[in-house]
Amino acid sequence: MHKYPKNILTLIAFLKKLPGVGNKTAERFCFDLIKWKDSDLKSFGQLLSTILESIKKCPICGCLAENEKCHFCDLSQRDKTTLCIIASPKDLYLIEETNSYNGIYHVLENLISPMDGFNIDDDNIKKLENRIENLKIKEVIIALDSTLEGDATALFIKTKLKNMDLKISRLAFGLPIGSSLEYIDGGTLAKAFTGRQKF
Amino acid sequence: MHKYPKNILTLIAFLKKLPGVGNKTAERFCFDLIKWKDSDLKSFGQLLSTILESIKKCPICGCLAENEKCHFCDLSQRDKTTLCIIASPKDLYLIEETNSYNGIYHVLENLISPMDGFNIDDDNIKKLENRIENLKIKEVIIALDSTLEGDATALFIKTKLKNMDLKISRLAFGLPIGSSLEYIDGGTLAKAFTGRQKF
Repeated sequence: MHKYPKNILTLIAFLKKLPGVGNKTAERFCFDLIKWKDSDLKSFGQLLSTILESIKKCPICGCLAENEKCHFCDLSQRDKTTLCIIASPKDLYLIEETNSYNGIYHVLENLISPMDGFNIDDDNIKKLENRIENLKIKEVIIALDSTLEGDATALFIKTKLKNMDLKISRLAFGLPIGSSLEYIDGGTLAKAFTGRQKF
Repeated sequence: MHKYPKNILTLIAFLKKLPGVGNKTAERFCFDLIKWKDSDLKSFGQLLSTILESIKKCPICGCLAENEKCHFCDLSQRDKTTLCIIASPKDLYLIEETNSYNGIYHVLENLISPMDGFNIDDDNIKKLENRIENLKIKEVIIALDSTLEGDATALFIKTKLKNMDLKISRLAFGLPIGSSLEYIDGGTLAKAFTGRQKF
């Protein structure tokens, strides 16, 4: 096989680092990119080079903040008695879209995952405990994935917070809206049974 | 919905311009990118900003050339009696991978597509005719997609070149290797019948 020019190969290697992008897709992206207008490519490149400087993590909750002040830590506008624990800043926007929560957030960054070598940052847990104490939080909602990592982390946090006077809850498990029993796996169905609600 | 920070929105807008990437995938790419190392993002951004300057199109055949001299126009190493017409520089690498062609190439850039407002560049066709005459090409292989646009363009080129003394061929249509008749569409099967070969 005749190899692509060196810069094309490097570009393909970068694109392959994106989640779910294999060789073929990266090649497709690459050959699409070199058809873009030079000005677009320059702006895109410039944005990528500086994105980490322009997007700061809020030192209090860990969400993405554009200005010095984090929108989601502004207690005048949010309910300061409930705190929602999430794995990544992205989850915050998914929750905000539902319009069903108006409390404050705490981003964990990593879930416990021995396979990937990730552990919970002790400083972050200490920060979480301090926030709960200082703000006199009444309820902590654990909004983590329903995966092995999410389960392990939820259990770890529950153990860490068990001596504090607060309600700890986790997102409900059950049938997704619009789903048919026929296509639901056994684990979900079992959870939906044990978690059944008065109707 | 609470909007993402402005730079995140811009980054998502750029990522959505990639082929086959919708809103959800662009968001996923974006939140993956902001987890990359800053040095990686800087190199990636730098590469994108300069890619069009480092990758030149060969003025003769239209393929990607790293140096002044295009590897595929180097007549000392290639068979100069056959010329293969392709739609994009990417197709060249796909053909080279098969090791079944050693002639020279000509890139059209655009196929005829009234829907997208693309037409064949007259200068490019003139250049093609000149190359065929000057190099005394004996066979022109039209290696365009089997789509409406590919068919229209192939027909157009055939008409343009009909007064020249050369063999014009097009890639064979038929069953893809490893396929089962059961899953083949009628159009392909009909083409495979009319194009059947002595066995």
